[in-house]
Amino acid sequence: MSELRKDPLSRRWVIIASERARRPSDFVVEEPAQIPGFDPFAEGNEDKTPPEIAAYRTAGSRRDGPGWRVRVVPNKFPALAVEGKLQKHGSGPYDRMHGIGAHEIVIECPQTVRSFTGLPDAHVQEILWMYRDRLVDLARDRRFRYGMIFKNVGKVAGGTLYHTHSQLIATPVVPRTVALKMEHCAEYFKLRERCLIQDIVEHEIEEQSRVVLDTGHFLSFAPYAPRFPFETWIVPKFHAAHFESIEQGQMEELAFVLKRTLLKLERGLGNPPYNYMLFTAPFHDAPNESFRWHLEITPRLTHVAGFEWGTGFYINPVPPEDAAEFLRNLKL
Amino acid sequence: MSELRKDPLSRRWVIIASERARRPSDFVVEEPAQIPGFDPFAEGNEDKTPPEIAAYRTAGSRRDGPGWRVRVVPNKFPALAVEGKLQKHGSGPYDRMHGIGAHEIVIECPQTVRSFTGLPDAHVQEILWMYRDRLVDLARDRRFRYGMIFKNVGKVAGGTLYHTHSQLIATPVVPRTVALKMEHCAEYFKLRERCLIQDIVEHEIEEQSRVVLDTGHFLSFAPYAPRFPFETWIVPKFHAAHFESIEQGQMEELAFVLKRTLLKLERGLGNPPYNYMLFTAPFHDAPNESFRWHLEITPRLTHVAGFEWGTGFYINPVPPEDAAEFLRNLKL
Repeated sequence: MSELRKDPLSRRWVIIASERARRPSDFVVEEPAQIPGFDPFAEGNEDKTPPEIAAYRTAGSRRDGPGWRVRVVPNKFPALAVEGKLQKHGSGPYDRMHGIGAHEIVIECPQTVRSFTGLPDAHVQEILWMYRDRLVDLARDRRFRYGMIFKNVGKVAGGTLYHTHSQLIATPVVPRTVALKMEHCAEYFKLRERCLIQDIVEHEIEEQSRVVLDTGHFLSFAPYAPRFPFETWIVPKFHAAHFESIEQGQMEELAFVLKRTLLKLERGLGNPPYNYMLFTAPFHDAPNESFRWHLEITPRLTHVAGFEWGTGFYINPVPPEDAAEFLRNLKL
Repeated sequence: MSELRKDPLSRRWVIIASERARRPSDFVVEEPAQIPGFDPFAEGNEDKTPPEIAAYRTAGSRRDGPGWRVRVVPNKFPALAVEGKLQKHGSGPYDRMHGIGAHEIVIECPQTVRSFTGLPDAHVQEILWMYRDRLVDLARDRRFRYGMIFKNVGKVAGGTLYHTHSQLIATPVVPRTVALKMEHCAEYFKLRERCLIQDIVEHEIEEQSRVVLDTGHFLSFAPYAPRFPFETWIVPKFHAAHFESIEQGQMEELAFVLKRTLLKLERGLGNPPYNYMLFTAPFHDAPNESFRWHLEITPRLTHVAGFEWGTGFYINPVPPEDAAEFLRNLKL
């Protein structure tokens, strides 16, 4: 029999329907990755992107020239524009404002590769430090309330370019998904005087069945009520509402855990399309005891259909215990 | 400049980013529809489905034999099972229950066709009456709180079978999406003593720019803050919280409006993959003044990516005014 499980962070219900796992049409076959003829993100093609916002560079190399390791540029087709005022406005029953925000691309390395998992850990650390730098910088603009860092890999996950990169969108309102998570964590804290995410970490370590990777500072695990097959979260074992507050030793370990978790997903599932999203507290929130930053990795092996859109329920044909066991036992 | 718009029903923000419309990769190309060699839903193949739950039949024809016009069977791979008890259970910070519910397929006609839009209006009416019959029947089971009727057409919209059909899933909890809509409508009613959906209908008729089809009892229109290009809603102009309370004359018109709206989407966009979802009040709710049933049709021409999953924001490259103008002017 299938099981209904509730994710305590989002309060979303998920149907773990293992009977349906056999339907081959439930799984998407990713198109073979097409190595591009021309790569606008490769070293030497800096003039094919808008001028850079930030870069980690070899001493002496010049802005918008070669010699960089990680480089950030504005999105050529931004969803939101940096210049202008919000001009909030009502119209009958509706609300609107100008599309003010920032939309940046983090080009993760100079080489034309599909994933950063082939790069040294030290390089992955630099990508993550760049995430932090950009959040710190964008938080200075008081029009922005939140910075969402995310990654789209493969066509069905919304990825349009081969070269490994992530994106950052800063928004003038706190996104509903984030606000709800924080609200649920705050309610839990009020009730139990404990951090919900810490309780989850402790419970998962005790249970072991959903653990993928466990290090001193981080836990990589399949959440209890995952929306998608092989969904995996990385959560710090220390308390921190803002990702920006991360320290050197923690970052080293995060790079280690993130790279190995992604490697397991790539090798185990044949380079599946996937997204990851970094959840952190809004820019101008004071640090708090109830919410903790975390990373959600969601392979996109199933299609979202009318039932999911209509109800907010998800049907997941792979129990997280099976997914975690598979990933945990995969040798790298 | 792009615009941020808030949908008052879901309180979801949408970025209307018309600058991005040109990116061809934002649009999915649907695989050509494959007419199946064998159709388990066709008349004569009744033994290839589980025994029927309900059917509209020619007098004298036999259950699970030919002679039907609309036929309902259990899903062969149900997400939820009808037999059993809920057995709600807690485990550490988590909640779960048995996957109890109903999962039915409404086979919309005996012929192997991809869409009911080629059938007479009178037949479309029967499909809609069957929706109502099933909701009325399932509401009798006190374990069920909600019945979601939905349709998946095309692979990227989760459709796995060619033959035109819809699905019904009855759930033991009120889905979050529905509960939030109802909550927002109730809050609006408390504040303004008016029905939010009625205010939307009146505003849209006044504005005209987002109207697709306007009849005596129904309005088909592009919502102010659509998640997806060419998203279209059908809303009654009369007040009714439950779809089940619909009357004969209203149903006649709904069939007319739904068939023509779908025809416009099919002809205008080349048989796009799409979903539709019927939102109605939960089974055991008393009728109320604040919420009104409605139908959302969402073509799936764009991919949902990390930003959308992370924030609950949607980026829509087609302004609803442009989409509505296109559909409104399309001759059938």
